[in-house]
Amino acid sequence: MPTTPHIEHHFTATETVRDIVIGMSDGLTVPFALAAGISGAGAATNIVVTAGLAEIAAGSIAMGLGGYLAARTDVEHYESERQREAGETENIPEKEKEEVSKVFRDYGLSEVELAPVVKALSSNQKNWVDFMMRFELGLEEPDPKRAGQSALTIALSYIAGGLIPLSPYMLISNLHTALWVSVCVTLLALFLFGFFKGRFTGINPLRSGTQTVLVGGLAAAVAFGLARLIG
Amino acid sequence: MPTTPHIEHHFTATETVRDIVIGMSDGLTVPFALAAGISGAGAATNIVVTAGLAEIAAGSIAMGLGGYLAARTDVEHYESERQREAGETENIPEKEKEEVSKVFRDYGLSEVELAPVVKALSSNQKNWVDFMMRFELGLEEPDPKRAGQSALTIALSYIAGGLIPLSPYMLISNLHTALWVSVCVTLLALFLFGFFKGRFTGINPLRSGTQTVLVGGLAAAVAFGLARLIG
Repeated sequence: MPTTPHIEHHFTATETVRDIVIGMSDGLTVPFALAAGISGAGAATNIVVTAGLAEIAAGSIAMGLGGYLAARTDVEHYESERQREAGETENIPEKEKEEVSKVFRDYGLSEVELAPVVKALSSNQKNWVDFMMRFELGLEEPDPKRAGQSALTIALSYIAGGLIPLSPYMLISNLHTALWVSVCVTLLALFLFGFFKGRFTGINPLRSGTQTVLVGGLAAAVAFGLARLIG
Repeated sequence: MPTTPHIEHHFTATETVRDIVIGMSDGLTVPFALAAGISGAGAATNIVVTAGLAEIAAGSIAMGLGGYLAARTDVEHYESERQREAGETENIPEKEKEEVSKVFRDYGLSEVELAPVVKALSSNQKNWVDFMMRFELGLEEPDPKRAGQSALTIALSYIAGGLIPLSPYMLISNLHTALWVSVCVTLLALFLFGFFKGRFTGINPLRSGTQTVLVGGLAAAVAFGLARLIG
């Protein structure tokens, strides 16, 4: 396996946090907006709950399984590009050496300065290909084991997020009351989610929280208005 | 503006294609599964259409606006990391030079070979910071103008994708017939979508098409079963 270069962790979010953010962001927003929308059309509470749960099932599968396949594709894409680069270092080594030279020339190195680097890099095929993958193509080696875990994290976060706006409709029989409890609970959850997302990703937490509330609130308001218009 | 190194276009998908794929992938899947799910619960056709349109509105806003904010965050994240790296080259230049050395040492260069490169890179702050951003942190400079266009492409693709499974329910009054026409039309659309996505991204088109059909089909089947169970 190729040794990827050491990477500083300036950015504190781990990949698991990123997956939770991806799943919960849509999970809080879309089922919330959908339930509010169907309520706006005057449907019965049990229809809102059924539609909401169907959406959570569909959304979590689409995001989780879709993410799994995308991650698998990334792994295959990396492997095929790596084989291609490895073949190029064997079949057209002079052209590949020139590509390495160009990288350093673009950073302001003179021919005298870059010549030993190009020579050293191209003397070891593994290092040479590692360099081309990362520097010329900008591709990081994906971890093949992450796809399954990532898919599960995204799907479970979507479900956890989606049950927050939906639970008032499950617990309160009056649709109007359930709608307003759902709106209050979910806007609060969206704010807290955005706030902690901001802290993890280094963005101003208050601004991040406000943005998350605005996206979720706008989606719900449009869905509500549209459904009321046609319902 | 920093000059990013030349990148070969091995991967043929453009960013617009990527945005269309992101939006249409979920747009075809989730409204399809939701409409099938609500049909499974025995709701009236107008409820299916209302819920479907509410979902399309909510999903396109959540994905489009969410994508816009994420792209804006990327731009700010890049800028703040860049300022931090620039500050480090001024305040702790020896440590930063050592980090450059480590990058080349990991590629098998000797101290004698890497010394002139480190010297040349660190003699020009812009080149030095460019190098650290790309090589040490693995960050590409995001295009600040892309956020708005990307958001619109994703949202419109979601709407276009979502109207395919929903249109049979709008045109056919019998719910049972509408459900089966929606299933046939959407599975065909999912296959064609996956097929062309595969061609654009260099994956086997038949396999890509089959995978897309399986994800959409599974999401719809689970949503249908769940809604029938509780409806």
